[in-house]
Amino acid sequence: MERTGAAAVIIGNEVLTAKVVDANGPLLIRRLREVGIPLRSVEIIPDDVDIIVEAVARARARAPYVFTSGGIGPTHDDVTVRAVALALGRQVVRLPEMVELVRKRSENLTAEALRLADAPEGAVLLPQEGTWFPVLTVDNIFLLPGVPQLFKLQLETVLARLRGTPVHLCNLYLRLGESAIAAVLDRVALDMPHVAIGSYPVFDATLDYRVKVTVEAAEAPPVEQAVARIRGGLPADAVLRQE
Amino acid sequence: MERTGAAAVIIGNEVLTAKVVDANGPLLIRRLREVGIPLRSVEIIPDDVDIIVEAVARARARAPYVFTSGGIGPTHDDVTVRAVALALGRQVVRLPEMVELVRKRSENLTAEALRLADAPEGAVLLPQEGTWFPVLTVDNIFLLPGVPQLFKLQLETVLARLRGTPVHLCNLYLRLGESAIAAVLDRVALDMPHVAIGSYPVFDATLDYRVKVTVEAAEAPPVEQAVARIRGGLPADAVLRQE
Repeated sequence: MERTGAAAVIIGNEVLTAKVVDANGPLLIRRLREVGIPLRSVEIIPDDVDIIVEAVARARARAPYVFTSGGIGPTHDDVTVRAVALALGRQVVRLPEMVELVRKRSENLTAEALRLADAPEGAVLLPQEGTWFPVLTVDNIFLLPGVPQLFKLQLETVLARLRGTPVHLCNLYLRLGESAIAAVLDRVALDMPHVAIGSYPVFDATLDYRVKVTVEAAEAPPVEQAVARIRGGLPADAVLRQE
Repeated sequence: MERTGAAAVIIGNEVLTAKVVDANGPLLIRRLREVGIPLRSVEIIPDDVDIIVEAVARARARAPYVFTSGGIGPTHDDVTVRAVALALGRQVVRLPEMVELVRKRSENLTAEALRLADAPEGAVLLPQEGTWFPVLTVDNIFLLPGVPQLFKLQLETVLARLRGTPVHLCNLYLRLGESAIAAVLDRVALDMPHVAIGSYPVFDATLDYRVKVTVEAAEAPPVEQAVARIRGGLPADAVLRQE
C-alpha cells in the first residue's frame, strides 16, 4: 500500500453501542473521494486511551493524513488529546490562544472548561468559520469533534488545505455471474497491478445486470486499456453497458 | 477491556472509495446492541490480504466473536478466506459439502466457481434459510458476504446461536453544558468503573437540552446508584428529564 492519502479513527462508545448512528465516517469517506484523497482505513473504537493510541499509530503508518472524530471536550470520556499525545510521544500542554477563546465565551470559567485548551505539544489551531471552536491539528493528525455539525464544518476547513488527485473510474454492468468472469478479471488484475478492479455481484431480480465491475486508476489510459482487455476476454454480449 | 463480545472487520475497497455506503456495519452495530452482545470495534479496510490478516488477528484479541463482511466470492478481489486462514495459521482447504452445493446450482462449473468452496481448515458451514449459500465459520469467526441482503440473512443465523446480556441504560437530559457537569461525571466515573458513563453535547437550539448523559451497566442497581450520585452532584434544576 502506498503511503499516501488518509486514514480515519472514529472514537465513540456511543457509536459502538448503537446510541447514535455514525454520520462522520460516511461523510469523510464521501468527501475524501470527491476531492481525490485515497482513504486507507476507518476504525471505530471505544473511548479508551490505549486503544486510541494504537489505532492512531496504525493510521499514521498507513497514511500521511489522519482524521480522528470524537473525544474532544471537557468530560472524563474525552481522551483523544491525551491518546494522540501518547501516540506521538509528546506531552499534553495548554494552548494559551485556546485558553483565551475558552475564557471569552465561558460564563464561569471552570477547571473543566479549560481542559478544552489542552493539546499535544506542537499542536496548532486552524481558524474555523461559523464557530468559535478552531480545528486542532498536530503532525497532520486532525482532531475533529464528534458532534456531526462541528465535524462537518471542520472537515471542510481541513480539506481546503489538502490537495487530492481525482480518480479515473469506469463501470461495466455485466449480464454474467462472477464465476463466469473471474478468470478474465484475474488475468487483467494480475497484469495491471496499478489499476484497481472491483467485482460486485447483485442479487436483485429487478436489476438488469448481475455483476458491476469497477476499473479505476490515477490516469485515464490504463483504465481504458484494462476495460478493453476485460471486454475482449468476455463474450460479445456480456457487457450490458459501460459508464 | 474484558475479552467478551464481538469485533467486526468490514472488507471493502468499494466502501472506502465511496462506491457504496456500507450498510453492514451499521446493521451489525444495531443488532448486536439489541441482542446484548458488546461490540469492541469495527474496522473498515481494503481487499488486501496482509491488512485483513492483521485486522482479523486484532479483532480476535479483542473479542471472542469476530464478524467479517465481504471478500467472499470467486473473483480476484475475494481474499477473505485466504486472509482468515493466514490469521489462524491454517491451510485453505476445499469443503466437499460446499463443492456439492456449488455443483448443484452452476450451469457450467468453472474452476473459479469452485473457489466458493475454499475455506480455512477447520471451517464449518451453517445452513442458511432463504438462500443456498451457507454461513462459513471457523473458530468463532463468521465470514459473512458483503452483499447486504445476504449479510443480513446470515447475520440472523449467527445471532440465533449466540447469547447476549441486555444492558441497563438510563439517559439524563441536562440544561447545563459539558464544562459545568464534567467535575461531577469525573468523580462518579472514577468511583464506579463498572458503570459506563457517556456525555454527549448537542449544539442545536431547537432541542431543550444541551447535554445527554448516558449511564449503563450489566445490572440495574449500579446504574440507579450512579444516576443518583450524578443528580445529587448537580443543581436541582439541571436535569430536564430522565429516561
